[in-house]
Amino acid sequence: MSVSQSHTTGSLDGIRVIDLTRVISGPFCTQILGDHGAEVIKVEPPGRGDIVRSQGNMVNGFSWYFAQFNRNKRSLTLDLRSDEGKALLCRLLEEADVLVENFRPGVMAKMGLDDETLRERFPHLVIGRINGFGSSGPYRDRPAYDFIAQAMSGFMGVNGPGDGEPMRAAPPISDMVASQNLAFGICAALVRRERTGQGDIVETALTNGLISMMGYLAAEFFATDQVPARTGNDHPMLYPYGLFRASDGEVAIAPSNDIMVERFLGALDMLHLLEDERFTDNSRRMANREALREILTQVTEERSVDEWIEHLNRAGVPCGRVYNLRETFEDPQVQAQQMKIELDQGEFGRVPTTGFPVKMSEAPAAVHHPVPRLGEHTRDILLDLGLDEAEVNALSERGVI
Amino acid sequence: MSVSQSHTTGSLDGIRVIDLTRVISGPFCTQILGDHGAEVIKVEPPGRGDIVRSQGNMVNGFSWYFAQFNRNKRSLTLDLRSDEGKALLCRLLEEADVLVENFRPGVMAKMGLDDETLRERFPHLVIGRINGFGSSGPYRDRPAYDFIAQAMSGFMGVNGPGDGEPMRAAPPISDMVASQNLAFGICAALVRRERTGQGDIVETALTNGLISMMGYLAAEFFATDQVPARTGNDHPMLYPYGLFRASDGEVAIAPSNDIMVERFLGALDMLHLLEDERFTDNSRRMANREALREILTQVTEERSVDEWIEHLNRAGVPCGRVYNLRETFEDPQVQAQQMKIELDQGEFGRVPTTGFPVKMSEAPAAVHHPVPRLGEHTRDILLDLGLDEAEVNALSERGVI
Repeated sequence: MSVSQSHTTGSLDGIRVIDLTRVISGPFCTQILGDHGAEVIKVEPPGRGDIVRSQGNMVNGFSWYFAQFNRNKRSLTLDLRSDEGKALLCRLLEEADVLVENFRPGVMAKMGLDDETLRERFPHLVIGRINGFGSSGPYRDRPAYDFIAQAMSGFMGVNGPGDGEPMRAAPPISDMVASQNLAFGICAALVRRERTGQGDIVETALTNGLISMMGYLAAEFFATDQVPARTGNDHPMLYPYGLFRASDGEVAIAPSNDIMVERFLGALDMLHLLEDERFTDNSRRMANREALREILTQVTEERSVDEWIEHLNRAGVPCGRVYNLRETFEDPQVQAQQMKIELDQGEFGRVPTTGFPVKMSEAPAAVHHPVPRLGEHTRDILLDLGLDEAEVNALSERGVI
Repeated sequence: MSVSQSHTTGSLDGIRVIDLTRVISGPFCTQILGDHGAEVIKVEPPGRGDIVRSQGNMVNGFSWYFAQFNRNKRSLTLDLRSDEGKALLCRLLEEADVLVENFRPGVMAKMGLDDETLRERFPHLVIGRINGFGSSGPYRDRPAYDFIAQAMSGFMGVNGPGDGEPMRAAPPISDMVASQNLAFGICAALVRRERTGQGDIVETALTNGLISMMGYLAAEFFATDQVPARTGNDHPMLYPYGLFRASDGEVAIAPSNDIMVERFLGALDMLHLLEDERFTDNSRRMANREALREILTQVTEERSVDEWIEHLNRAGVPCGRVYNLRETFEDPQVQAQQMKIELDQGEFGRVPTTGFPVKMSEAPAAVHHPVPRLGEHTRDILLDLGLDEAEVNALSERGVI
């Protein structure tokens, strides 16, 4: 599915974002804002830029990992360690609506932009910030990465087989969640600013974000004071539910209540099992899970994954194939939802990335800009800011941009 | 950490949300809106209400699972199958800013509220919608649950040990992500509405949300056309990185670049390993991962988890303990960040839930209302709508509320 550059306006049309972030967690947040129409100016150090520009698999000398997080931005190089660079940043902030940064706590203050100063000089500004543990508390200065946040949030502790070790999720889930939280928080602060004229400081943290995702497992822990056990792919409270072996692979089947269980067993022609005293209700089925699993597997392995998926969906039983990423992006529904899109990167060719998960009818997310080359928009942005050609050239010669 | 009811205003103060959602994915979204100050009216069927009210572990007859997703809401009972119920819903929508629903596609249309009608009658309204696969495409009518979305998004396929089966995340991660996406999308649409006066229809889906979280794994797949392998707790591209055995448990250690690897090996007094030709750079360390793991483990298992965490943090190496949920909520940083809060539920006592992951300086998230009893605010809301006592009583007698 190819999406060419759009000339529609998004929900955040007219919002200008100054983006000081790098790597994943910040850039994913500002990309979301850009997808929905904000003008995002990615500020990068002159020379190498965001470190991710040279990471991951390069195709034609272009990092597709970088592309995954940096569409819909313009790139401005600026040496923020220089006084001139800092002064230019302040001029940019005067005309901006949002500033986003993912430095470790204290770095902005060292640049002379502590919270007090930011609030005083730019009272209209929404400041978004993302870090590992939050900017207060005993661990505020500790480095944190996704793997550590997965470990300390309790997330890893509940994942994995009951007889195995705690298991991380492979995607950098805490980065992604904190990014999404921040994109939400920035928009909520913008709603308030439209009404009051006041900015705000919005902060999210990798660990806090994952803790908030623990959902009913946290509630069960609070209610029982029992730490939830790891149960692998089995649901801790429901059976039948999970992966079932078909003749050519495994099917995920998720009957979430008694009606669905009836449909499932009906579809297997095994409704009589509900009269077996071992299986008459969910608690008995949980107590006799292995026996029931064996009986059901004898049936499920007689047909193929495709056959079961068609048959069970017709019966209204939630089910699906366990896809690898190739199968996911080849799936007709995923394609209909445009969850893979292509960016036109000129000399670097067409570059696929994941699509937009938030769909809007009137002001849809779109590709407004492809991924910028390092410093591609430096000159334009500085001229717009009121500098003249000679000043821009001088800055360039001094290595500030 | 106890948080009493707040009288501050949040970012979404003055925004009124009509919430038709139930179970997890919708209620988590509207709770986020409520945490940040929106007035959320939870519309529930008379009699039993949201099915989650009677699910999970009950304490004093009160579901803490329900509490986890329904603070900061008021409850209105309304029979949406009745004509009177539908008419009252429409009156509510006239004065509302946001409608959120997580019915299967088509249910709203059957109630006479298809998109066309909603847009025509309530042009100012932001309509938020969450479902399994999206409301268009071949699977639009299929039931979907978290487990299926985890399977079909490719998420499960990359999680788990290299020699084991694909592994789900235990929390209902696709529900939670789609909720957060929707909260973002609703706020983005509200920003636009403040400027244009126009509403929008915002939609998120369990499967789409998880696909967008695949991050650099999707990029690597696109760039190489190779399906990412499951690598358990090992990083697919970096070593040393992962879980290391200490004398009394395991430590998560995440040196994400060469500088951090040097710090890590220095802290272990093993810097000489970087001169061993098997380990001189990351690609060699990846090729000889098992040998290096064995050498490092001999050192790490000599000291306790606590000792390593203190020592490595002092050296600036990202590390942490693999917590269970009890340890997470007892951690001083998690407490300093107030990631567990308590609701004052009157006769049901004080009920803990997870805290607010999005921190705001000026307009912080807060507990504005505890979890409502079923229909607790029905009368107040209908009187505010202009009905008189006699009309409310008559509706109650006819079972509409």
